[in-house]
This record gives sequence, structure tokens and C-alpha cells, in this order.
Amino acid sequence: MSQHLQNEIAALKEKIIYMGTEVEDRVYRATVSLINRNEKMAQAVLAGDHEIDQLEVTIEEDCLKLLALYQPVANDLRFIISVLKINSDLERVGDLAVGIAERSSYLIDQPQITIPFDMSAMMQTVESMLTRSIEALVNQDVQKAYRVRSEDDRVDAMNREMYALVKNELAKDPEHINILLQNLSISRHLERIADHASNIAEDVIYMVNAQIIRHSPETFED
Amino acid sequence: MSQHLQNEIAALKEKIIYMGTEVEDRVYRATVSLINRNEKMAQAVLAGDHEIDQLEVTIEEDCLKLLALYQPVANDLRFIISVLKINSDLERVGDLAVGIAERSSYLIDQPQITIPFDMSAMMQTVESMLTRSIEALVNQDVQKAYRVRSEDDRVDAMNREMYALVKNELAKDPEHINILLQNLSISRHLERIADHASNIAEDVIYMVNAQIIRHSPETFED
Repeated sequence: MSQHLQNEIAALKEKIIYMGTEVEDRVYRATVSLINRNEKMAQAVLAGDHEIDQLEVTIEEDCLKLLALYQPVANDLRFIISVLKINSDLERVGDLAVGIAERSSYLIDQPQITIPFDMSAMMQTVESMLTRSIEALVNQDVQKAYRVRSEDDRVDAMNREMYALVKNELAKDPEHINILLQNLSISRHLERIADHASNIAEDVIYMVNAQIIRHSPETFED
Repeated sequence: MSQHLQNEIAALKEKIIYMGTEVEDRVYRATVSLINRNEKMAQAVLAGDHEIDQLEVTIEEDCLKLLALYQPVANDLRFIISVLKINSDLERVGDLAVGIAERSSYLIDQPQITIPFDMSAMMQTVESMLTRSIEALVNQDVQKAYRVRSEDDRVDAMNREMYALVKNELAKDPEHINILLQNLSISRHLERIADHASNIAEDVIYMVNAQIIRHSPETFED
């Protein structure tokens, strides 16, 4: 039975990694669709959300099945509970990618206005946090997870900067209210994706160290 | 051992209900602080978030302890997993209440402007969804849970209405950008609280019926 459980856990690990890379891919395409004003790419993200929802349900059912059938303890239990939580974070990141793609699809048809904000830099930071949170999961890499978590403040600061800039632009350029608000909304979506990447990192730390670090200061621990 | 587990489950139920009413109370006070321009009330919400964070960690640790010690199956397993998920939704609702209180605290010091939007009605709808999702949890009331879930669309519509109104006001009254954006942000926070109330309702349905209904159409089922 224990070998069975190990096989099931290996399969579950593969599935959650697959879900992670699929969601990552959605975020990447949603942001590239905006930068390159590529409507097709935005539409692909909008069309693909159903798959992510299905994956979430499948992974959750697998977790519950494993808990009921094998009544795992210690590491195995922690792994399954962490997957359950990471799964739900990833699904919400998928929804946020859809939100970005919707706004991108709107913005592509609008005049391009200049906001003195490096949206690409914010996108890259957030995508890198998400990628590394999934790598931390794959490799059970606690140090990487701590580094992901430590970057969340930087993204929050970027979002605040964007808010201040949009506020200024709204005053100068009230004609483009919608465009400005949609850009602000994208920045806020990115900030929430960074939050989820941090949650995933915290779950990886819990998985490996059996230690709940949520709500504790964001120090790097070796 | 089984009686022990039943006692532990009863204690866990009490804790998650307590967490629910505490979070509900935060949302209520955050929204009343805005309506009545009551700074003290806003500050009380800001000061009390640490307790909610602590409660979340305690409840999560309890769930994990029960899973590891008793290796529950069937109803008991579903109950514990649902509590784990509801716990995390409630903690996020607590964060959103803080977000509303921060904005309320800012707005109290600003001139009162008129947006033709019934914010009280939105607040009441969202609070009622949250209250009833917790009642559904307490009484394992699937019908109530379905009704909570069916109201989410109405709140989404209210949020869209608020967006359209704020956009109009921004064009007419660019002086009050910050006030308008902060009001819009409160509406968005309420909309996210309604999402979490729906998630809780879905977890109650899963707990009682052993059926994952996420991502399925929002029909009422007896």
C-alpha cells in the first residue's frame, strides 16, 4: 500500500506541476498580448480558462481520494494538503490571467497612450515570482521559496507607483479615463498574482519544514 | 478514539464559527465606519487584523493535527478539508475588511461627494451573503448555500455599475480623482468579499453533499 501511495503522490506532483506551468503560460500570454498588442494571444487566454478550472477540480478530487484511501501521515499528509492549497492559488492566478487578457483585448483597440511606468518590468517581476514559486515546489527548494516571498513588497510598491501615475494622468488627460483605469486594473491584477506566488512559496516552506510562516515577518531563513 | 475525534470536530466547528463571526464583524464595522464617517470604527478594524491572522493559523494547525492523529474518513474528512478552505477564505475576507477600513479612514477626512450609487445596498447585500454563508456552515444548510452563491452575479453587476458611474464622475469632476478611485476600490473589495462568501457556500455544499460544484452553472438545487 505504501508503494501505491508513493506512486499516487508522484502522479499528483506531476499534475500540480503541469497545472503550474499551464497557469504560468496563461499569465505570460496575457501580458505579452498587451505588450505586443496581439489580440489572438489575448483570445487564446480567454478561451483556455475552462481547462484550468477542470484541472483544479481533478487535482482537488485526487487529493481527497488519496486522503480517504491511504490516510497518509507526516510528509505525505503535508504534501497533499499543500497541493490542495497551491491548486486553489493557481486556479485564482488563472482567473487573474483571464482578467488581464480581457483588459488587454480592450486596450489593443484603443489609442496607445504613454504612462511613465515600466509595465514590462512589473510583468517580468511577477512572472518570475510565479515561475520560481513553481520551481520551489518542484525541487522542494525552501531558499527559493523564501526569496519569492521577499519580493512581494517590491511588487506592492510598483502597484502603488502605478496608482499615483494614473491619478496624475487622469487629471491631465481625462479623455482617456477608461484606458488609464484599465491599465491600473492590470497592475492590480499583477499585484494579486504576486500575492498568490507568495502563498505558494509559503506552502512550499510548510511542506518541507512543517512550519506555517504565514503572517510572520518576511525574513530570509536558511 | 472515535468519540475523541467527534469532540475535536465539535471544537473545530466552534472555532471556525467564531472566526466567521469575527470576520463578519470586521466587514460590518469597516462598512459602517464609511457610512457613518466614524474614524474610531475604522481604526478598530485596522488594529484587529492580527487576531484574525492568528485564528487562521490556529485553525489550520488544528485541522492538520486532526488529519494526522485520527486519519479521518468520509464525512469527518470532508468536514476538516472544508474547514481548512473556509478558514483561508475567511482570512482573506478579513484582509479585505482591512482594505475597506483603510479607504474609509482616508475618505472620512475628505469632502463628501455624491456618486449616484447606493453603496449601502451593496454593502448590505455582501454582508448578508457572508452572514448566510456562515449560517449555512453552522446548520449544514445546502439550500441556503445555493442561495448565497446565486447572488454573486448581482454583486458583480453592482460593481460594474459603480465602475461606470465613477468613470462618468471622473470626467465631470477631475478634482476629486482620489475620492472617486477610493470609492471604486471599496466597491471592488465588496465584490471580492462576495466571491469569498460564494466559495464558502460551495465548500458547505461539498461538505454536505460530497460534490464539488465549483465552475458549474449557478442553478438552485433542492
